[in-house]
Parts: sequence; structure tokens; C-alpha cells
Amino acid sequence: MRYLLTNDDGIYARGLAALWAELSKDADCLIVAPEVEQSAVGHAITIARPLMVRAARKNGRFLGYAVAGTPADCVKIGIRELADGPVDLVVSGINRGANVGINVIYSGTVSAATESAILGVPSLAVSLDSYGEADYSVAARFARKMARLIVKDPLPGVAVNMNVPALPREEIRGVVVVRQGRARLLESFERRVDPRDNIYYWLAGETQLADGDGEDSDAVALKKGFVTVTPLHCDLTRHDLLGELALRIAQAGGKGTPTW
Amino acid sequence: MRYLLTNDDGIYARGLAALWAELSKDADCLIVAPEVEQSAVGHAITIARPLMVRAARKNGRFLGYAVAGTPADCVKIGIRELADGPVDLVVSGINRGANVGINVIYSGTVSAATESAILGVPSLAVSLDSYGEADYSVAARFARKMARLIVKDPLPGVAVNMNVPALPREEIRGVVVVRQGRARLLESFERRVDPRDNIYYWLAGETQLADGDGEDSDAVALKKGFVTVTPLHCDLTRHDLLGELALRIAQAGGKGTPTW
Repeated sequence: MRYLLTNDDGIYARGLAALWAELSKDADCLIVAPEVEQSAVGHAITIARPLMVRAARKNGRFLGYAVAGTPADCVKIGIRELADGPVDLVVSGINRGANVGINVIYSGTVSAATESAILGVPSLAVSLDSYGEADYSVAARFARKMARLIVKDPLPGVAVNMNVPALPREEIRGVVVVRQGRARLLESFERRVDPRDNIYYWLAGETQLADGDGEDSDAVALKKGFVTVTPLHCDLTRHDLLGELALRIAQAGGKGTPTW
Repeated sequence: MRYLLTNDDGIYARGLAALWAELSKDADCLIVAPEVEQSAVGHAITIARPLMVRAARKNGRFLGYAVAGTPADCVKIGIRELADGPVDLVVSGINRGANVGINVIYSGTVSAATESAILGVPSLAVSLDSYGEADYSVAARFARKMARLIVKDPLPGVAVNMNVPALPREEIRGVVVVRQGRARLLESFERRVDPRDNIYYWLAGETQLADGDGEDSDAVALKKGFVTVTPLHCDLTRHDLLGELALRIAQAGGKGTPTW
């Protein structure tokens, strides 16, 4: 087995080291990760400038490839160029902080997994619900179990998004499969003036659960102490609205030879 | 009516000017757009540094706010801070180059529209299928028609993604509502060595239509001369797989009190 590991917190992050330590028990693990932190980059890729790639070392030994780019870049170049052969699984994480609800679309960690799915390689994104000095070993253990489940019988085109509560293992209530909920950042902006009288803003705000989201959604289940698992893809279409929208456009004269 | 206009090609782009010229006939249009080009940034937002905001001018008159950030940043700060009142519609574009198929997830133009939908404001992304010195006026005219249709009776939480062929208006075959197809970049990397012996790579490759995609998908319909319209949202869940994945995890011992 060959796994490719990446993240969005950067190649020297503790969450990635914990993931490597656990997954190396099952597979050859190649790290291809961003040179510096890339949180909230979403599904950005680098096209306007080249990608610098460096063999990174830790304690004198080869650690992996550091890429001056985004998590999605790392997956593309890792699978296409840097791995010595076919990659069986891409695992992204362990992210510092949960990736649930609408916030998933801002996540570099999750985008690495969806990029992998686009390239036809099964994938898993793993996040720990903590911004503190957390212990990643419990999450790493769940990641290993899930990774084995995925590679045994992959679901084509699917990226699995896993979130782990920051709890001792015996307090975790189990693993549940849930949908992406509607929890989101309720943002505010703090306006300031710099020493040269230029105006700038800091994005602030807190993630809030959505009214109506229940235990079948990721954010709520995670808060209740479950490990959450959500299968993701890249089709953003509101299929249920295709007919309604076509009707409205036809009524407005936009169909057939356009009168618009 | 108050529209907020943005894009990912930067505040001085021709596509944005064409959009403003046409939409100003119907609404007060405030431009809040990136200071510099942001193509392929996907749904990135800026959290690690502040957003510089500048009143940009053109020919001595106020053009709009230039934000040193991403299209999604522009929408957040435009709606929350910079607009003088409630925004009725966000329009993003006109992008230089189509945004269809899987490539939609890399698009800053489309991400501005989905960000707006998250904030509860109806939105429209507009792209022209040309990288040359194209005429944006035909696309701007279709954008105006679609904008009026959306604000008349908004579909909550929906971002509309519109692509316009680079054809004279009389050769456009009509407006069709289609799903996001599976056309995607088939990438390759060109390896080079810099003057200091560091290795770097350029992302190359071409977008290819997917086998099995027909005229009900965006890329195919666009190539055949139709204006395409696709309703998008931010739920990436593969709802059809929730049960199957839950079954597999249960069989592997992951449900209930975890044995993992």
C-alpha cells in the first residue's frame, strides 16, 4: 500500500506527524505538504506562478516534499510527479480545528481530499475539534481504521470527511455517518487605521450551529461526542431546482432563439 | 435596487466594466473587487492577515473598493461593511474564460456567488468562454436579463452560474438550464531548475470534456452555442452514499461504543 499524506497546517505540523506515525503501520507513507500554513485557502490551486518543491528534513532524515503551494497543489503534484508509483489513498490532516458545516468549503484540508477524488484516488480528510495543545493520537487511530476501510473497497469519486472530538478515547460515543450541516461563520469585521492612515479590516466572528440542524448533521453530532464521517463529492448542482429554473427562464423568453 | 459587483480578474478588468455598464441601467451598482487578479483561488478567504481596502478611481471618478483579498473576501466585506444598505443581488464577473464542469470548484468568480448565497443574498456568476480579446457586451446583456429574473423572485440559498459562448448574439442558440458536468483539467507538470539549482514545476494541461457528459451538462451545452445556467449550492454531501457508508462502518465495528 502507498499512502500520500498532506495537510493545510504545513509540513512541520504536529497533526501531520501524528498521522504519519499511525498510518505508517499499514502503508508506505509519502508526505507532500505545504511549506507554510494554508488554512482557509479552500480549493485554490497555483497557476500564475511555478511551484517550488523542496526535500524537507527533520532530525537529519528525509521528512517529505515541501511545496510552496496549496493543499490541492500538493495532491496534484504528489500523485502526478512525486510519488514513485500509484497512490492507493490520500489522507489529509490531522487539521487543528473541526471542518464541519458550510465552513467545509473554506477548508484546505478537505479540498486536498476532494482534489484526490477528482483525480480518481480515494481520500480521507481528518480534523480534530480543538485549537489548543491537543493530543492527536486518538484522532490518528480513528484515521487509521477509516483508511483501512476505504482502501479495502473504495467508493469511486468520493472524499471522506472525518471529524474527531477532542476527548479521551473512552469518552467518544462512536462513529456516525452524517450529512454536511449548515453551521457557518457569523462574521464581523473590525475596522482599523494603519500608521499611514490606510484603512484595513480584520475578519472576526464565530462559527454557529444552524437552526434546524440535528444529530444527522456533522457539527451537531461532533459536539455530542461522536466521530463524524461524511462522504463528499464536487457536484455543486441543486438538481432539485433544474426544472423550476428552466420554467422561469422559458416564461421570461430566454429559451430557444433568444429574445434576450 | 442595490447590486454588489465583484470578480476574480481584478477591479480594473474589462469584464467587470462591461457588467457595470449594463447592470447600472437597472440598479445602483457598487463595485467591491480584488486589487489584483485572483484566478483559481477557489473559495479562499483571508483570515491570517488583515484586508486592506482602498477607494479606487478611474479617470478621476470613484470606481469602487479595491480589496487586497479574494473574491469571497470582497463579498463578505462588501455586504457586511462597505455597502450603504441591504444588497439585493451580488453579480460576479464577467470572467475571462468559462467556469464549467469540475473546474467550477477552482473558480474565484463562482465562489464569490456561492459566498453570497451563504450570506442569504441571491447571486449570479457570469463567465465568457474566451481567453482572447473578446467582446463582453453580449454576455453583459444576458447577465442583465438573468439578474432581473433572479431579483424578481429569488431562490433562497442558490447561486446561479451562467456561462456565455463567445459568439455574436444572433448565433447564440438560447439559454438552457443544465447540471455541472464532469469536464476537468487533465494536468501535467513541467519540471525545471532555477539558476540556483532549486527545482520547480509549472502546472500545465488542458480542460477535457468527460465521457458520458451530454447536452444536459454545462461544458457540452456551452460548446454547442448555448448560454448555460446552473443553480449551485454549498452542500457537498453524497446523500446517496450515507446509508452504504454507515453499513460498512458498522460491519467494521465502528458504530456505537467504538472498538476502533
